[in-house]
Amino acid sequence: MIEQRAYTVEPWGLTETELRLDLIAQSESLFALSNGHIGLRGNLDEGEPHGLPGTYLNALHELRPLPYAEAGYGFPEAGQTMINVTNGKILRLLIDDEPFDVRYGELRKHERHLDFRAGTLTRIAEWTSPAHRTIRVTSTRLVSFTHRSLMAIVYEVEPLDGPATVVLQSELMANEQMPPMGRDPREAAVLEAPLRSLEFEARDAMIELVHETNRSGIRMAAAMDHIVAGTAQVRIGAHAAADIGRVTVTDVLQPGQSLRVVKFVAYGWSRQRSLPAVRDQVSAALTSAHHAGIDGLMAEQRAYLDAFWKRADVELEGDTEIQQAVRFALFHVLQAGARAENRAIPAKGLTGPGYDGHAFWDTETFVLPVLTYTNPDSVADALRWRKSTLGIAQERARQLGLTGAAFPWRTITGDECSAYWPAGTAAFHVNADIADAVIRYVEVTGDLAFEEQTGMDLLVETARLWRALGHYDVYGNFRIDGVTGPDEYSCISDNNLYTNLMAQRNMVGAASACERHFIRARDLGVTADEMAEWRAAAAAMLIPFDEDLGVHQQAEGFTRHQIWDFENTKAEQYPLLLHFPYFDLYRKQVVKQSDLVLAMHLRGDAFTAEQKAKNFDYYERLTVRDSSLSSCTQAVIAAEVGHLRLAFDYLAEGALLDLQDLQKNTRNGLHIAALAGTWIALVAGLGGMRDCHGDLSFAPRLPDGLTRLTFTLTRRRMQLRVAVNATEATYELLQGEGVMHLKHHGEPITVEDGLVVRRPIPAAPVRPPPTQPKHRVPLRR
Amino acid sequence: MIEQRAYTVEPWGLTETELRLDLIAQSESLFALSNGHIGLRGNLDEGEPHGLPGTYLNALHELRPLPYAEAGYGFPEAGQTMINVTNGKILRLLIDDEPFDVRYGELRKHERHLDFRAGTLTRIAEWTSPAHRTIRVTSTRLVSFTHRSLMAIVYEVEPLDGPATVVLQSELMANEQMPPMGRDPREAAVLEAPLRSLEFEARDAMIELVHETNRSGIRMAAAMDHIVAGTAQVRIGAHAAADIGRVTVTDVLQPGQSLRVVKFVAYGWSRQRSLPAVRDQVSAALTSAHHAGIDGLMAEQRAYLDAFWKRADVELEGDTEIQQAVRFALFHVLQAGARAENRAIPAKGLTGPGYDGHAFWDTETFVLPVLTYTNPDSVADALRWRKSTLGIAQERARQLGLTGAAFPWRTITGDECSAYWPAGTAAFHVNADIADAVIRYVEVTGDLAFEEQTGMDLLVETARLWRALGHYDVYGNFRIDGVTGPDEYSCISDNNLYTNLMAQRNMVGAASACERHFIRARDLGVTADEMAEWRAAAAAMLIPFDEDLGVHQQAEGFTRHQIWDFENTKAEQYPLLLHFPYFDLYRKQVVKQSDLVLAMHLRGDAFTAEQKAKNFDYYERLTVRDSSLSSCTQAVIAAEVGHLRLAFDYLAEGALLDLQDLQKNTRNGLHIAALAGTWIALVAGLGGMRDCHGDLSFAPRLPDGLTRLTFTLTRRRMQLRVAVNATEATYELLQGEGVMHLKHHGEPITVEDGLVVRRPIPAAPVRPPPTQPKHRVPLRR
Repeated sequence: MIEQRAYTVEPWGLTETELRLDLIAQSESLFALSNGHIGLRGNLDEGEPHGLPGTYLNALHELRPLPYAEAGYGFPEAGQTMINVTNGKILRLLIDDEPFDVRYGELRKHERHLDFRAGTLTRIAEWTSPAHRTIRVTSTRLVSFTHRSLMAIVYEVEPLDGPATVVLQSELMANEQMPPMGRDPREAAVLEAPLRSLEFEARDAMIELVHETNRSGIRMAAAMDHIVAGTAQVRIGAHAAADIGRVTVTDVLQPGQSLRVVKFVAYGWSRQRSLPAVRDQVSAALTSAHHAGIDGLMAEQRAYLDAFWKRADVELEGDTEIQQAVRFALFHVLQAGARAENRAIPAKGLTGPGYDGHAFWDTETFVLPVLTYTNPDSVADALRWRKSTLGIAQERARQLGLTGAAFPWRTITGDECSAYWPAGTAAFHVNADIADAVIRYVEVTGDLAFEEQTGMDLLVETARLWRALGHYDVYGNFRIDGVTGPDEYSCISDNNLYTNLMAQRNMVGAASACERHFIRARDLGVTADEMAEWRAAAAAMLIPFDEDLGVHQQAEGFTRHQIWDFENTKAEQYPLLLHFPYFDLYRKQVVKQSDLVLAMHLRGDAFTAEQKAKNFDYYERLTVRDSSLSSCTQAVIAAEVGHLRLAFDYLAEGALLDLQDLQKNTRNGLHIAALAGTWIALVAGLGGMRDCHGDLSFAPRLPDGLTRLTFTLTRRRMQLRVAVNATEATYELLQGEGVMHLKHHGEPITVEDGLVVRRPIPAAPVRPPPTQPKHRVPLRR
Repeated sequence: MIEQRAYTVEPWGLTETELRLDLIAQSESLFALSNGHIGLRGNLDEGEPHGLPGTYLNALHELRPLPYAEAGYGFPEAGQTMINVTNGKILRLLIDDEPFDVRYGELRKHERHLDFRAGTLTRIAEWTSPAHRTIRVTSTRLVSFTHRSLMAIVYEVEPLDGPATVVLQSELMANEQMPPMGRDPREAAVLEAPLRSLEFEARDAMIELVHETNRSGIRMAAAMDHIVAGTAQVRIGAHAAADIGRVTVTDVLQPGQSLRVVKFVAYGWSRQRSLPAVRDQVSAALTSAHHAGIDGLMAEQRAYLDAFWKRADVELEGDTEIQQAVRFALFHVLQAGARAENRAIPAKGLTGPGYDGHAFWDTETFVLPVLTYTNPDSVADALRWRKSTLGIAQERARQLGLTGAAFPWRTITGDECSAYWPAGTAAFHVNADIADAVIRYVEVTGDLAFEEQTGMDLLVETARLWRALGHYDVYGNFRIDGVTGPDEYSCISDNNLYTNLMAQRNMVGAASACERHFIRARDLGVTADEMAEWRAAAAAMLIPFDEDLGVHQQAEGFTRHQIWDFENTKAEQYPLLLHFPYFDLYRKQVVKQSDLVLAMHLRGDAFTAEQKAKNFDYYERLTVRDSSLSSCTQAVIAAEVGHLRLAFDYLAEGALLDLQDLQKNTRNGLHIAALAGTWIALVAGLGGMRDCHGDLSFAPRLPDGLTRLTFTLTRRRMQLRVAVNATEATYELLQGEGVMHLKHHGEPITVEDGLVVRRPIPAAPVRPPPTQPKHRVPLRR
């Protein structure tokens, strides 16, 4: 965990004022820069000390065999692992032949600042070398949102107390030596030297290295060029070899003089394009960098973010730390998704090697809903990526004896990479989650062209999967047996409620889309019969409910299982999966992460208000939040059923998950879906937003202590700003013509351009507060 | 598969008259010799050609890491694999410098004969070398039942058509090169060069090699000595190196002259004893071999088997092939269990490397019941082995968060070696199966001393496991959730009927034993409270029953699952596990092997006759017999509910499983439990024997075509012979004083020494024949 004081609390950035080597890996994740295409961990410019060096290119992966001591039919044979590619961040500095290394000499001042509006990471260091020369180093790093293949670093050094001979080595380094990883299965497999050199070149201050991955056969090029401003004596040399390119700048500086180097780095990669094509691509990117210039890149970066914050900002009065956290969250969600463009948005974005760089269902269920309202084009891109993998998913369905498409539980390029099928293949809900993201995106944007060209394929093929996966019992119920829901402490259950409700939405959604696009439907082979079958199966869907307890069952039979012995489970035995066998977790009533509660959020229309309250109370006692994908959903339903303080506690827990390293694995990368959950907890939780069947509604209420919440969202090209305080809410359109119909606490209202609609906040229902398992009560905010 | 004509049909042996290289690996399994301590595959004397060389020492294993692409808490980290040890079978022959190799020259005659009464494998070969010299080779091999560390070979060669210079190399060879194995997960992992030389010595015609396994640290010694009878010119030399010992015998023979070599081989191994101790042990064994002489060893072997057949023989009139098969089965079951003596009886005995040489539940459930009535001392030994592993099982229970003992799903020395927990750890029924074997052994033998010293520990610790594993629901039912029953096409189910009924027997049996041995019980910490808890849980055990269908459920909810699409499953898609994913098998109604039907055999007291008939009919439609552990149980219940032809069809399928290689994996070793099943199908099936709560009963009935069935069994030191024909059954005591009370078709009768009790056979109930899945109807007999 990271204690509070490691970073300053401020509204628009994250600053560290002390370099703590014990937190260096976590800081590298928090200070990561990315545009969704390229990602750089916040490693120090000089490369060392480091927690985990990281330079990632979206979808650039290597294959590794998946071993099984006892194999089975349909087990995936190869896994994909995101690899650390050629590192272009490195600028090594020597002062009078002494390497600048913060572990030696004295670091007199250290500050790093991630600026959410500038989109840059800046650093100031003042250091006295072991030979007693003091210098100041400043650097500014960016990964461009507007030039997706580019990153840039401005590096400046000046002596403070006397003359210094300065040697600056700017590097491109492939096959970096990586620190050994632990045995936590969530950590990535180490792949040593995954890149094979194809070509290298040094020319003036420019270096180009071209490599290929050994097994996955992806070609990649990295190139760098430099603009140097020093004294009249400055000298520049360049040298390249297979795995290292180095531009060396030498100068002699007096106090008051400085050496300033602008470094542009470009990356290109492809499995299909030829070596010259990939090489020329990075050369072109460097040319465009020179053309824009560093000042131009920075100005574009700020403009891009200004537009984003105008659309997406969330303001909070009464809790400055959460104010910072929600902007930190939105900034990183944007970084993960902005320019992914037909590639996946991984669970950790491009901030670390966790989960092997794989994308899971949480992209569709947590990340895309936020982007749908704040940066919708990236949602269309992310779903186009899913469609691009449809052939693989169809083939996987065939292999599993099903029709339609079976999307993978975890993947980089579409192939199933899960080696533990009870929590992988069996988690079919990922297919309904993709359909849900399509339905939401189309509903919110009205983008019918997307629906026809991309959404239809996804909806139809997933609906077909559900029809094949489920069956009717003799009583006429449509059952989906032997599947795993979101809660990973249960598995291979019959009629997981979340899965059944999401499959229901999927099949109805597919049938509705086919009505709207009947020619496209015909081309996909959909008949009226098939549409009727989907609707019939959806209507007959079995919804497990325990009549005696009066609550829904997470899955059939769940409420008859033994309740986990929370009383005798020690605080240090969490997360339970590291201390108890799956067999024991699966057979008992213990919930890793919101499952039925998530169904109550996403399919709120399937429950009465009373059922929601009763279900929440029942499952709250069982939910241990060993997953980062739980607290935001608990916040949403806690708020809905009236537990506002609890909602805010959960909101805060999710918001601070990475900033305080609450799950002790931030070193491996940020939890992008949990960060997205901060927005969800605020907007769907405290704001009470639901957007279902075309009905946009809000039920805002603030907990004591928060004085004001303001958020903006884009729907059908209109921007709606909602502001809430203790007594009233206001709704106004910021941009876009037309009117927006919505509900405020159930009351229909119409918001028109130029008018502010004001409504009072009704009192929350009063219900006894629910209890949580021992040791799992959220921190009071 | 092996067609009929590969072996002759005869009552007391198995003979091949042609050497078929396509069946060589299967023949090696069928012709395997073992005493449960040492096992030799039926490899040719000269070592090559071979299917799979095999020399096994019970429990001698190496460790291999169990890999997991996604690991989990409590997954075993190392597996045990039985290894092929120093081969002492090899006798290489050179005729005028030409190696005797059946692949070259011409094999004019070949015959091998396994003699069930002599306990020997004999071979006659007449071969013309490429240089046109014809010789006759005869050999006789035995693994002694009476000297458990010894094997012996009598090898004789004579030229038939002219003089020949004969060189015979008798070898001990360690770290033999093994053929590569396929990818079928049931096959053993190949371990190259598992033995490390510690010492070797050659002296006269004697060789000794001492090795140690690399990781498991087991020391083993192999030694051989020879008695040579040749002409006056015969010469003998010996040479030893790390992995090879060779005694070379040279002679020049005229037609009519022969060279005869008797080879004794002794093995000793231990993880604890020192190198000198192990070495001296084999030296002593060789001394005892010389003392007994080869004729003495053969006479003892025959006497041992005569006694066995007197106790255990089953005679069958009307089907000579099944007559042969049942004796083949009994012979191999005896070979597997005779001298295992505090070591496990593996699933394949010591006949091949299949299943890594592991022992499973099938030893207790199929093998021990047969031995209980035919060779009870070996049952006591096998259960003493289980007790010797109790500490490991207790530790495993601790690791799983349970009390009592959790015995492993598969193991050599007691450590869990299953790397796929849904079909391993979750199959807790193995614990009840062990308890069941204890209860049966004590009931049948009356061996209360064993019960007190060995049985008590096993019963008490397994009863404790069940109490911890199950829980009461709010309705007062005792539930055992999330476990896997015998049927491996279902898994992690709630309230598997077989498991619940066997756990019930286990808990009641433990409480009863504690009553009988209350001091021992007190020493084990058992209180009256604990005994009452076991009885209460047993009484409250949930028995899943589908009221609508009127049948029991294999597990809760099972009958609501989709029925497997048998109609569209092709014949070549069996076994299903090699063509369909587990997730699909688990979620549907399809049964790999008898599960509920096995419960109806072992816990027949828990069902009415009508329920048995109805259940059998229901599950027969779902059972595909992809396991070798199914047909015998189906035979037993088919016979009970009146389907006598079907019972015999299943009996025959099980009986011929290895003789005809029906599962296409006999090459990896025999299916010892299925072989035991032949006896079970005859005695419990056609003979209708049940032995429950002290009530021995028979309900014999023969199908058309069988004219007579006679079997003998030992109970409470008395030998009962039962003879059945179409119209009547006779019961008589062969040995032992006293009276035996039993039931014949429900009628109580008393059998006294010297009297033959004769009773008519009532007509079988007439019921419509059940149906099986398409392509899975058993062959009509």
